[in-house]
Amino acid sequence: MDRLIRELTNLPGIGRRGAERIAFHLLKAERNGALALARAIADVKDKLRHCNVCYNLTDEPVCAICSDPNRDQSTVLVVEQPRDLIALEQTGMYKGIYHVLMGRLSPIEGIGPSDLTIDELTKRISQPARNAGSVEVREIILGLNPTFEGDGTALYIADHITKSNAQNVRITRLARGLPSGSSLEFANAAVLADAIAGRQTVGQSGSDPHTP
Amino acid sequence: MDRLIRELTNLPGIGRRGAERIAFHLLKAERNGALALARAIADVKDKLRHCNVCYNLTDEPVCAICSDPNRDQSTVLVVEQPRDLIALEQTGMYKGIYHVLMGRLSPIEGIGPSDLTIDELTKRISQPARNAGSVEVREIILGLNPTFEGDGTALYIADHITKSNAQNVRITRLARGLPSGSSLEFANAAVLADAIAGRQTVGQSGSDPHTP
Repeated sequence: MDRLIRELTNLPGIGRRGAERIAFHLLKAERNGALALARAIADVKDKLRHCNVCYNLTDEPVCAICSDPNRDQSTVLVVEQPRDLIALEQTGMYKGIYHVLMGRLSPIEGIGPSDLTIDELTKRISQPARNAGSVEVREIILGLNPTFEGDGTALYIADHITKSNAQNVRITRLARGLPSGSSLEFANAAVLADAIAGRQTVGQSGSDPHTP
Repeated sequence: MDRLIRELTNLPGIGRRGAERIAFHLLKAERNGALALARAIADVKDKLRHCNVCYNLTDEPVCAICSDPNRDQSTVLVVEQPRDLIALEQTGMYKGIYHVLMGRLSPIEGIGPSDLTIDELTKRISQPARNAGSVEVREIILGLNPTFEGDGTALYIADHITKSNAQNVRITRLARGLPSGSSLEFANAAVLADAIAGRQTVGQSGSDPHTP
């Protein structure tokens, strides 16, 4: 019991009191329920792996998104980590596939290009056979965080792809500007500067200001 | 003294205790300092007015921005209220002029097109003589808040300008997307959907991801 409490205390956001409460809950719980949790933890460590194509987390060699024939295999959205991919999937807006970099370039933390899956990304462009369905990549959407390091990484990747002679690939990045539902009055200068610089023409039909 | 405290209590964010503190502060203060405040309040009410061209707050018939020869008089950024204009000016990014609508369309609050300065905006487009320097308007940037009512107002104005036969005017809107410095992981679905829909091509030189 003491060992369980000690292990639980190691988890983020769980203190001594919380750990005790969970431990006693497990003690009182049905045997099957408690063992299901134990098995889920073991499975995550044993079976979860990175997709051979996009490096998303999966329990198959190729993840469910990469192997989905209904998704546009020619559009690849590049994200820093699996959590970003989950956030984007929850919008239900994106029908292409992904590439997970497993981090961003950070000179301060000593993270260089070889620590990320950048080479694997350029190989997906130059060797379509590496993609599920062997589809040629036609658009790379840089979906890195709108931060100093995210911008630097995006710049590096755009440069790298351009230099690797991938003339047919369009490189785009996610829009930056005012977050939907916010107000101009309280936006900071960097957000407003992005909003001015990235302004988009409204269709002369005036039908939908959302479409660029 | 009692009357002063009562008047101060009417101000937003000032309670009875705060009003007393301010009243006693004024009582102890130098006569000139206290009278300067009184004069500033009177001046705001007496002298502050709306610019004849753009409806920004000013103490001249035409505001300092409209009458500045160094600003691009052919680009007009449309905002809901003077506070939005101040936020945009603080970025130092924008070199054009403004048009203040004095609100946004709100069917719920009974605010219709005639309550705003929309007609005055279309007149600025059709009659260049109404602008300081009589310069023709070539771009209208819709800078309304990225909210339901702001979007509706932007749509109405875009439609209105298009219908008023202003073929030479380009209509744009401020970029919407990820706020600079934020992270994808914690962005809500509407923000991510805007970011995907509004994605922009990165220059093949890869030089600056900020430029559309």
